[in-house]
Amino acid sequence: MDSDENTPGETPLAIDDIEAFKQAFRRHAAGVAAVTALDPDGRPVGFTATSLASLAAVPPLATFNMAQIASAFKAMTVGNHVAIHTLGPRTRHLAQKLAADNAVRFDGDHWTPGPYGVPILAGVTSWLLGRVLEVHPVANNAVVVVQIETGALGPEDDALLYHERAYRSPGDEV
Amino acid sequence: MDSDENTPGETPLAIDDIEAFKQAFRRHAAGVAAVTALDPDGRPVGFTATSLASLAAVPPLATFNMAQIASAFKAMTVGNHVAIHTLGPRTRHLAQKLAADNAVRFDGDHWTPGPYGVPILAGVTSWLLGRVLEVHPVANNAVVVVQIETGALGPEDDALLYHERAYRSPGDEV
Repeated sequence: MDSDENTPGETPLAIDDIEAFKQAFRRHAAGVAAVTALDPDGRPVGFTATSLASLAAVPPLATFNMAQIASAFKAMTVGNHVAIHTLGPRTRHLAQKLAADNAVRFDGDHWTPGPYGVPILAGVTSWLLGRVLEVHPVANNAVVVVQIETGALGPEDDALLYHERAYRSPGDEV
Repeated sequence: MDSDENTPGETPLAIDDIEAFKQAFRRHAAGVAAVTALDPDGRPVGFTATSLASLAAVPPLATFNMAQIASAFKAMTVGNHVAIHTLGPRTRHLAQKLAADNAVRFDGDHWTPGPYGVPILAGVTSWLLGRVLEVHPVANNAVVVVQIETGALGPEDDALLYHERAYRSPGDEV
């Protein structure tokens, strides 16, 4: 083994080129979730997240990342309640709705108020409701840690992915 | 709209039941990545991660979650270098190798020392090398924030998912 930084067949990234970092992440597929909450004025806010991850099962903890300029960020205060929804192909419209203009994300009958008034999206494969445990601002973004308190499993559906700029379902075993 | 906590067709989770939280996350598909580093004794350590997420593009930041009992956790000190690899179906063996017994994860010719001696896995679709910027311990786990400094795109391959206890590739557009 030597310490050459690139092996044959590799294309070095000029990482000061933002596009290069994005290209690497484009090779990574992500599950699609939706996060909702009430902001300090009691208004429903939410967004589509491709960064949802489990952090622990005991206690049940999950994380997601977001931009601080996001309309939902002002709801991410320690102790506030948020709902995390896993989506499927049959609820792809929710992913699109919560990624669209934030002024109209809650126009319609695609949600109902759940525990603590937090919007629960209809037809999702599962929702988990919890309290914001920690918010870690990093640059213009933030990592949010949520401790799950309750939830429900919804109708059976496949999972929803975002990969190569398209919504997909998981394919064959490899 | 009313404030009933469950709508027809939903199965409430008894969230103190760990299995219920896991069931919800089982409905979420995740991309598969591998993280490597050198521990304080200079030994290669690493693990397979389904929690890799982009945090920002400017500056390029990524996060992953891990257990504090993981063999690689002692390498997660602020300023230490780590490599994040995106995997594909052709490098599924790397996901399996880095999820197996940690004593043998680096036995073999599936890696070479890269920048700062950090193990770079062979044949991956991309690798990104950076410094640990923040480590946030939460319960027995931790959120790790990495600022990417360099990297390379590897051979073309599909993405690798973990869903319903199997490695998969992304399927059709939905």
